Amino acid sequence: MNRELLTWFNGRLVPDSEVRIHHTDSGFSFGHNVTDSARTFGYRPFKLKEHIRRFYRSMSVARINPGMPPERMEEIALEVLEANLPVLDPDGDVWVTQTATGGRMRSTIGRFEFDRPGLLIATLPLGFADYAHLYEKGVHAVTPSTRHIPPQSLDAKLKHRNRIFFTLAEFEVKEVDPEGFSLLLDIDGNVTENKGANFFIYRDGRLRTPTTRNCLEGVSRATVLELAREEAIPAVEEDLQPYHVATAEEAFFCSTSYCMLSVARYNGNVLGEGRPGPIYRRLIGAWSRRVGMDIPDQALRGAAV
Amino acid sequence: MNRELLTWFNGRLVPDSEVRIHHTDSGFSFGHNVTDSARTFGYRPFKLKEHIRRFYRSMSVARINPGMPPERMEEIALEVLEANLPVLDPDGDVWVTQTATGGRMRSTIGRFEFDRPGLLIATLPLGFADYAHLYEKGVHAVTPSTRHIPPQSLDAKLKHRNRIFFTLAEFEVKEVDPEGFSLLLDIDGNVTENKGANFFIYRDGRLRTPTTRNCLEGVSRATVLELAREEAIPAVEEDLQPYHVATAEEAFFCSTSYCMLSVARYNGNVLGEGRPGPIYRRLIGAWSRRVGMDIPDQALRGAAV
Amino acid sequence: MNRELLTWFNGRLVPDSEVRIHHTDSGFSFGHNVTDSARTFGYRPFKLKEHIRRFYRSMSVARINPGMPPERMEEIALEVLEANLPVLDPDGDVWVTQTATGGRMRSTIGRFEFDRPGLLIATLPLGFADYAHLYEKGVHAVTPSTRHIPPQSLDAKLKHRNRIFFTLAEFEVKEVDPEGFSLLLDIDGNVTENKGANFFIYRDGRLRTPTTRNCLEGVSRATVLELAREEAIPAVEEDLQPYHVATAEEAFFCSTSYCMLSVARYNGNVLGEGRPGPIYRRLIGAWSRRVGMDIPDQALRGAAV
Amino acid sequence: MNRELLTWFNGRLVPDSEVRIHHTDSGFSFGHNVTDSARTFGYRPFKLKEHIRRFYRSMSVARINPGMPPERMEEIALEVLEANLPVLDPDGDVWVTQTATGGRMRSTIGRFEFDRPGLLIATLPLGFADYAHLYEKGVHAVTPSTRHIPPQSLDAKLKHRNRIFFTLAEFEVKEVDPEGFSLLLDIDGNVTENKGANFFIYRDGRLRTPTTRNCLEGVSRATVLELAREEAIPAVEEDLQPYHVATAEEAFFCSTSYCMLSVARYNGNVLGEGRPGPIYRRLIGAWSRRVGMDIPDQALRGAAV
Amino acid sequence: MNRELLTWFNGRLVPDSEVRIHHTDSGFSFGHNVTDSARTFGYRPFKLKEHIRRFYRSMSVARINPGMPPERMEEIALEVLEANLPVLDPDGDVWVTQTATGGRMRSTIGRFEFDRPGLLIATLPLGFADYAHLYEKGVHAVTPSTRHIPPQSLDAKLKHRNRIFFTLAEFEVKEVDPEGFSLLLDIDGNVTENKGANFFIYRDGRLRTPTTRNCLEGVSRATVLELAREEAIPAVEEDLQPYHVATAEEAFFCSTSYCMLSVARYNGNVLGEGRPGPIYRRLIGAWSRRVGMDIPDQALRGAAV
Amino acid sequence: MNRELLTWFNGRLVPDSEVRIHHTDSGFSFGHNVTDSARTFGYRPFKLKEHIRRFYRSMSVARINPGMPPERMEEIALEVLEANLPVLDPDGDVWVTQTATGGRMRSTIGRFEFDRPGLLIATLPLGFADYAHLYEKGVHAVTPSTRHIPPQSLDAKLKHRNRIFFTLAEFEVKEVDPEGFSLLLDIDGNVTENKGANFFIYRDGRLRTPTTRNCLEGVSRATVLELAREEAIPAVEEDLQPYHVATAEEAFFCSTSYCMLSVARYNGNVLGEGRPGPIYRRLIGAWSRRVGMDIPDQALRGAAV
Repeated sequence: MNRELLTWFNGRLVPDSEVRIHHTDSGFSFGHNVTDSARTFGYRPFKLKEHIRRFYRSMSVARINPGMPPERMEEIALEVLEANLPVLDPDGDVWVTQTATGGRMRSTIGRFEFDRPGLLIATLPLGFADYAHLYEKGVHAVTPSTRHIPPQSLDAKLKHRNRIFFTLAEFEVKEVDPEGFSLLLDIDGNVTENKGANFFIYRDGRLRTPTTRNCLEGVSRATVLELAREEAIPAVEEDLQPYHVATAEEAFFCSTSYCMLSVARYNGNVLGEGRPGPIYRRLIGAWSRRVGMDIPDQALRGAAV
Repeated sequence: MNRELLTWFNGRLVPDSEVRIHHTDSGFSFGHNVTDSARTFGYRPFKLKEHIRRFYRSMSVARINPGMPPERMEEIALEVLEANLPVLDPDGDVWVTQTATGGRMRSTIGRFEFDRPGLLIATLPLGFADYAHLYEKGVHAVTPSTRHIPPQSLDAKLKHRNRIFFTLAEFEVKEVDPEGFSLLLDIDGNVTENKGANFFIYRDGRLRTPTTRNCLEGVSRATVLELAREEAIPAVEEDLQPYHVATAEEAFFCSTSYCMLSVARYNGNVLGEGRPGPIYRRLIGAWSRRVGMDIPDQALRGAAV
Repeated sequence: MNRELLTWFNGRLVPDSEVRIHHTDSGFSFGHNVTDSARTFGYRPFKLKEHIRRFYRSMSVARINPGMPPERMEEIALEVLEANLPVLDPDGDVWVTQTATGGRMRSTIGRFEFDRPGLLIATLPLGFADYAHLYEKGVHAVTPSTRHIPPQSLDAKLKHRNRIFFTLAEFEVKEVDPEGFSLLLDIDGNVTENKGANFFIYRDGRLRTPTTRNCLEGVSRATVLELAREEAIPAVEEDLQPYHVATAEEAFFCSTSYCMLSVARYNGNVLGEGRPGPIYRRLIGAWSRRVGMDIPDQALRGAAV
Repeated sequence: MNRELLTWFNGRLVPDSEVRIHHTDSGFSFGHNVTDSARTFGYRPFKLKEHIRRFYRSMSVARINPGMPPERMEEIALEVLEANLPVLDPDGDVWVTQTATGGRMRSTIGRFEFDRPGLLIATLPLGFADYAHLYEKGVHAVTPSTRHIPPQSLDAKLKHRNRIFFTLAEFEVKEVDPEGFSLLLDIDGNVTENKGANFFIYRDGRLRTPTTRNCLEGVSRATVLELAREEAIPAVEEDLQPYHVATAEEAFFCSTSYCMLSVARYNGNVLGEGRPGPIYRRLIGAWSRRVGMDIPDQALRGAAV
Repeated sequence: MNRELLTWFNGRLVPDSEVRIHHTDSGFSFGHNVTDSARTFGYRPFKLKEHIRRFYRSMSVARINPGMPPERMEEIALEVLEANLPVLDPDGDVWVTQTATGGRMRSTIGRFEFDRPGLLIATLPLGFADYAHLYEKGVHAVTPSTRHIPPQSLDAKLKHRNRIFFTLAEFEVKEVDPEGFSLLLDIDGNVTENKGANFFIYRDGRLRTPTTRNCLEGVSRATVLELAREEAIPAVEEDLQPYHVATAEEAFFCSTSYCMLSVARYNGNVLGEGRPGPIYRRLIGAWSRRVGMDIPDQALRGAAV
Repeated sequence: MNRELLTWFNGRLVPDSEVRIHHTDSGFSFGHNVTDSARTFGYRPFKLKEHIRRFYRSMSVARINPGMPPERMEEIALEVLEANLPVLDPDGDVWVTQTATGGRMRSTIGRFEFDRPGLLIATLPLGFADYAHLYEKGVHAVTPSTRHIPPQSLDAKLKHRNRIFFTLAEFEVKEVDPEGFSLLLDIDGNVTENKGANFFIYRDGRLRTPTTRNCLEGVSRATVLELAREEAIPAVEEDLQPYHVATAEEAFFCSTSYCMLSVARYNGNVLGEGRPGPIYRRLIGAWSRRVGMDIPDQALRGAAV
């Protein structure tokens, strides 16, 4: 790759390495930021409208005004993608990421006054090598002692970058397995989500996923529920506890980047058959058909490069 | 001020405007950062060792290794201050701020690998104009509906910049009073702290402040407790509820920048006499004597410039 | 109005001004009371049977025995209404209120002995002027810091007059907006209800209302669910958080007196379009058709008198 | 007793039977009221100033303005007592009760407007017969399933008449023992208080009483702590659980009327020796000396009349 | 009965009186055990496969490996039953119980090492006399102050013998009624289960039972739901509070041994009509038809022997 | 060792291998048991009276009547020890364990009737080899996701053998480190205890240990507090969170068998200097002096045999 990728930053396209936030910007110094990311399949964005709609919801809650309607933001995202296509690996795919910050605070004590918000729209390549080998092997889900933040403090449905608690939880998980995936509980002991993924189990004839009380209203989660409907697999949203996970027949994470990864072990114990099961296979197959490519296969080929 | 202030950033002094974090640095994109700030009085740092000690505790919990001992960091801070003195207002004072980030993540799914951490040490001027008028008037403390994050999710004793929940709480407070100060409860309904300050009441002959279960182990808080001991004012750390605040004789916030601000109203009701009371005056007087300057007076003169 | 309204009080009709509870009656001094209120449309009671049924449930839980079957209580209520019709404004309408108290306690320490219970049945006019202007403008919903009482302490499904916590919460709300409507959270941070109304949002194609875990099993709430079924609007009962409200397309309160009022703002932010939306309009229209009068219009005309 | 007792009610002395609250007064219909009661010993009020001080705290939190300073209220209370002395049993004693209500609400939806507050000051005789026999026998403390209301909903330190949850809890207790005394837990399982009394245990050489997080800042509780100090009995305020009670050497309730009653059984099990123990005897002895009369003896003589 | 019943114990059939666990076996000394029990009707096991399946789930969570597949365990259970038939009362029926223990711990501090697990399979007679008289009378359900253990500590879906908290709760219940049945709440105040039974109410036209968040995934509970479906009685799983129980039209417990017992009183108050109601009768009738015997009648005849 | 150790079991001394509990004894089948254990130093029991006193408290709460006073139980324990001395290793030491069970239940449904309780008193050798190597190395404390049972469900101050939740938590810990020591949090995120030990940290000049709200009132814990007093090390009982542990200068567990073991790592991070620190050394030294032997040295010599 000879030319650097370009990112839209506060009104213009700049080399991505120049997209830097000043240390006194509220987006960094007060964590006053929100974000959202779609991905492409064959460089066609998947559910970009849904991601941008959620991004506008996040900005509304965080009281950040982007100064443009969602339709315009979608156009810009497509323009950024278009601009970067020449330098992108033709067999790869990208994240399509929007991030907004509150701007520099003019007063930090007493009155609340911000400069105009910051906005960036980037299309960075997916990192197939990080996870391609996990499609067949499945992942090891581990529940750390750290609990998810309750919604009366900070709602998991708001998508932002204040993720230090996820990072600290992940450190605990890596003590069990350097490739472990965190599966956090809420403060009542219900299963919630991974730092970057929603979670499903299959048990007693039904696909089950936590309600969104303590997890993201994931676009991938919605996709899994759509695919289950198409495949006539009954699915419910309900409170789940670790006992449910430990005694599930199958379990998987779903996320924008890798779509779905099966859970082979939970807290050191084999889960179900210890490998991707039939429900997982049907759903990732259906997803692959919908986007016109074999999702695990693309990652494996991409990782091999 | 002709010359720009300099900030130590990853090993060298640069103009502060160049101290920017890339959007994919974990310190921004995963909120993987910690920070701490002392202030100066007459450009002599106050309790800098205590702030740096707490900063090392924060880095240890966040598993960020600064690559230097605390003594060296203190030296650098003093060097930065020294370098900036020529361009600083002789009647002003500065924050002495350390911030560390986790560095760019090499893998965001599966393994957990970071580039080397980022570190910045800055000495930026205090913003007297924001709060000088509040010393005599007192502030309006308002309890929002948002609750502080419980320690099993993210401990308030860890000082970092993942403060979006504080910002959202502050928005609620500003609906009541554009200059209101948030006073958050924890999820059990106990009083905790302001987004940037600890909190005390005086009631029934004793100074009372929340335990650090759900608030920062504030250096200013410790200073108030020391001054109270010197002034023979009995003081306890205990759970407090809004009823205690509403029926207190006096209340105040304490923070690195303004040291102490009295609370004149709470949730719209007058608190005590509705103006700085005798206990507040004794303590801020003792603090002023300790640092050799009249703290409110400096701010008022600075704000008038 | 020349003659005073009559109220049934412990067995006979008396002028309403004489319906007073002695300060040592347990209904006042121990809050040992339950209550329920229907309203009329064109002086025809609406769902009076349902209200009286719930009143009997409340009396059963509070261990107050009214000494008559529900059918007899309904007859008395209709007799009171009949007796008052001559002095009521022909264009107005009334509350139909039942209240029972535990009676004077013969012993307050040790044994638990009560005199016979008190019972009153009143038909007082609705106060159109209080809220008529809010039908078109919509209301400002505000979430105070006070949380609803959890059901293990006192169940919100029991309808009584021990409402001081609602009053204290409302004082907080009035600091934000003198006409604000409280929308309380439960101690887990879920949305519950207003001091006198249930709550709905419309979002993602579905009408959503909190379960009755922490709110009244409202008769108006049941009416809205019936009307939604008739109008083929999908509806669910589920846990909702402030994020849901802030990102809803529409929201409204429902209550016996005003039936439905749309929410235009939430915690200072515009909600949806900031005015009564299409779902609200369909439902209040359907309700109006069911009772044979334009509900907002009656209130507006009544308020103008 | 030929002449009826007089009570001060909204500005004048009236026969107590005429002190009645209208059913639409917010003090009844919204539970918007606060109260406090001292008692006399030989018709000399005990700690009346402390009770009135707490009453003013309660009124301040409930935003009820009595329109007079505490000194004037104390004078009125003494005048009421003086006026009633001729008709009171010379060997008896009275409650000295203040109660305030919010007044009639002019609007119950939208704006919050009240007529002027109601205020009553009464001196009614203590009911010795209810509890005199319990001084020697001790009481049976029973923990019901109902939990005390948490302070984030309604603070137990605020003294009001919204006590239906206490009444419902007491009904549970009376199923175990018709003379049982409720001892409620908070929602975390800590011991709190009885519906009208604070609670102490003696265990491992120390008197222990719950903190006031979830119980009244009782004037009798403060008296017990003073007496313990005088008697050199170490005392602490701390979280207690039912295990502590079940394994205590002694336990007792304290309240304005009966001062102290020992606990002989807890949840059906004998507690300690099953009768008033040495610590209880020392403390009630010290209290009796302080007020110049044998407290249990007065009650026994009064009950025998 | 001349010959003693035989029980399968660690590989062979022995007289049941010899089935004893050493005091240092982890199954006793650390409570490291799991269990499950089916019953027979006319000595035909009912849903034995379901019980054994749940037993394998429990063993998996408790990390106890029985060393045989579920099919083999079922065979053994049938063999034990067969072996005991000659000495069993022809009109009676038996429990079919599996219990596994972790085995003796070789190290209790530091490393975690166990000897091979213990396993017993027993077929002991049902105790009709304990409960036969309750079919017609109904039972008295009582809610104790003790709360069910939350799933983040120990999941109620895991079936083991660490039931001391149930026993302590039951002692509280027996203070109210020597034949009372405990109905525990969870720590949020939701209804859960009896120490050995699930719980249902019928209210507002629907059968309602708590979700399995805080209670066993009962095989009898599943049977009731199946029978309700067959009988076209709408049924839901949802959070229930004591208010729901107190205001229910009917309520009943269901358990392996007695199948279903109606609730006649709740916390001392009559529930519904105070005797087995029509829904209960339909369901127990349907259950009786399914197993080919009148269930209450068998118990009554058995108890009369 | 030629002859088997003898254990007192329901009234007589029997070979320990014959001390077995029948599978239908409530002590096994309902977990209805309590226990306590002292240890000897040079075969002199240490604080046996304190252990037996706590055992009587446990039996009282569990409503198990041993049929003898504590003085008699102490005599029996000494007799058992005496009887076993001839066959015990002269350089070893023993546990002195009392365990009581509720006896066989005569009815498990409806009435609550037990046969007479079971009681055993055993003196089994300490297992030095399990932990001797940890005195110098220190242990790795790990916080699992499982939370301690809250006291409103089952109080940690009651000492019994229903420890399956501790075992499940320990399995999680062993996934991190096969020799890891669990350090459980309570459901509020406060540090509690290890499955068999209390916990202390040293930080900011004070020894700190959790209150007994959620942990055993440990006899070893009391010993550490006594030794600290003698050594003039300030000590407090207070709520601690994982942040406190991670930033402590020292930490250690204390337990009857090993007395004290230092914590070298916490959740994978080095704690303090990563080896036994000066405060630990002073305290274990003081303990050794009190019992007249070098405690770690005895274990090391014993393990080497």
